[in-house]
Amino acid sequence: MKDILRDKIESKVWKPDDLIDSEHQLMAQYKVSRNTVKKAIEDLVQEGLLNRVQGKGTFVSRPKIEHSLGGFYSFSKVLKAKGIEARDVVLSVEPKLCLPSIAGYLKISVGETVHELKRLRYAGNDPIIFETSYIPARIAEHIQESDLNNIGLYDLLQEKYNVSVVKAKESFEPVLIDKYESTMLHVKEGYPALLLDRIAFDISETPIEYCRSIVRGDRCKFYTELL
Amino acid sequence: MKDILRDKIESKVWKPDDLIDSEHQLMAQYKVSRNTVKKAIEDLVQEGLLNRVQGKGTFVSRPKIEHSLGGFYSFSKVLKAKGIEARDVVLSVEPKLCLPSIAGYLKISVGETVHELKRLRYAGNDPIIFETSYIPARIAEHIQESDLNNIGLYDLLQEKYNVSVVKAKESFEPVLIDKYESTMLHVKEGYPALLLDRIAFDISETPIEYCRSIVRGDRCKFYTELL
Repeated sequence: MKDILRDKIESKVWKPDDLIDSEHQLMAQYKVSRNTVKKAIEDLVQEGLLNRVQGKGTFVSRPKIEHSLGGFYSFSKVLKAKGIEARDVVLSVEPKLCLPSIAGYLKISVGETVHELKRLRYAGNDPIIFETSYIPARIAEHIQESDLNNIGLYDLLQEKYNVSVVKAKESFEPVLIDKYESTMLHVKEGYPALLLDRIAFDISETPIEYCRSIVRGDRCKFYTELL
Repeated sequence: MKDILRDKIESKVWKPDDLIDSEHQLMAQYKVSRNTVKKAIEDLVQEGLLNRVQGKGTFVSRPKIEHSLGGFYSFSKVLKAKGIEARDVVLSVEPKLCLPSIAGYLKISVGETVHELKRLRYAGNDPIIFETSYIPARIAEHIQESDLNNIGLYDLLQEKYNVSVVKAKESFEPVLIDKYESTMLHVKEGYPALLLDRIAFDISETPIEYCRSIVRGDRCKFYTELL
């Protein structure tokens, strides 16, 4: 049943923003139980292909925001190209003594100070990515005095600190939204998300930033081209 | 609490196969409630960083299998390089009338016949990837007569049908394991997984295969390098 509904969405028989057939219609049409229909719809809601509107019914979601993994992508540029407003909201910038794992990624000593920068990245009115960056304090002194709501982190590093990010390693894995992320991203606990780990390097291969992002799986997908 | 435990694992304070501290020890050490400890451990079990062994305790998992997304990767080669046996088990090869979505991906007519090939890919004794491939029937006649347990699909296409895959587009998004996948992959329903969609092309840019894989998130992670 899930595959049938998925096919209707992917083949655009049901188009974005369409109201889908009711549970009763689907039960009659495919001769399946209410439970089967309910479960298939619930799974596709969690995947982000369908969304429920209280009192109105179940609608086909707009296509997910696509991120290329072929090269550096700019979240804001991707959105602007689609006519969606991109906006970053800085939640906190704080000095922290760095934990062993982060010291390892940044190749600095355990307990050295790092700036911990927490940001929410919005597409229109929806928070899509919850990002936590760690930057060695010594390469970006007083970064908390800059207005990171209005300048990208890499632009700031370039302009104010003369540090250019030229390379990054990313790894990602599927995870479930936890309670804290759920309040940040306005999505239910247990929904699928992508945990994206990035280490960014300057020209001399020195790690500049370690960043951990939680990307909403119901709103984003990733793609790459293999040659 | 989750971040503290994650740091212990990532920084190798707790090593793979180590038995971690008991809930009581963690409660005392960090002055947190039993619920906090339980929830943090449960989240990390779902992410695949920890695993519980009935009656024995909670252990640090071995590192996840890493797949590069920088170029074509071979699941079996990745595993062999780590000394893990790779094995494919064909579940079914059947002719199907193709659905509109699949016709779109393969650029063939709706209702044309495709071979539907379902495979489970094992790492050692564990099923890791559940893969469903669709191949236009006309480019690989009688493929069901070949022994795909013992030859890779792309090798077979090359050797028997003179068709070479030279390019692929992949997209992926995080999803939750559903009931059917749960029985296939021996992992609990609702655990995180990656849904990987691939369209493979030959030299003339003709789609050769559309493939949909469910990859266990508790056992695999992906990485890419951005330049």
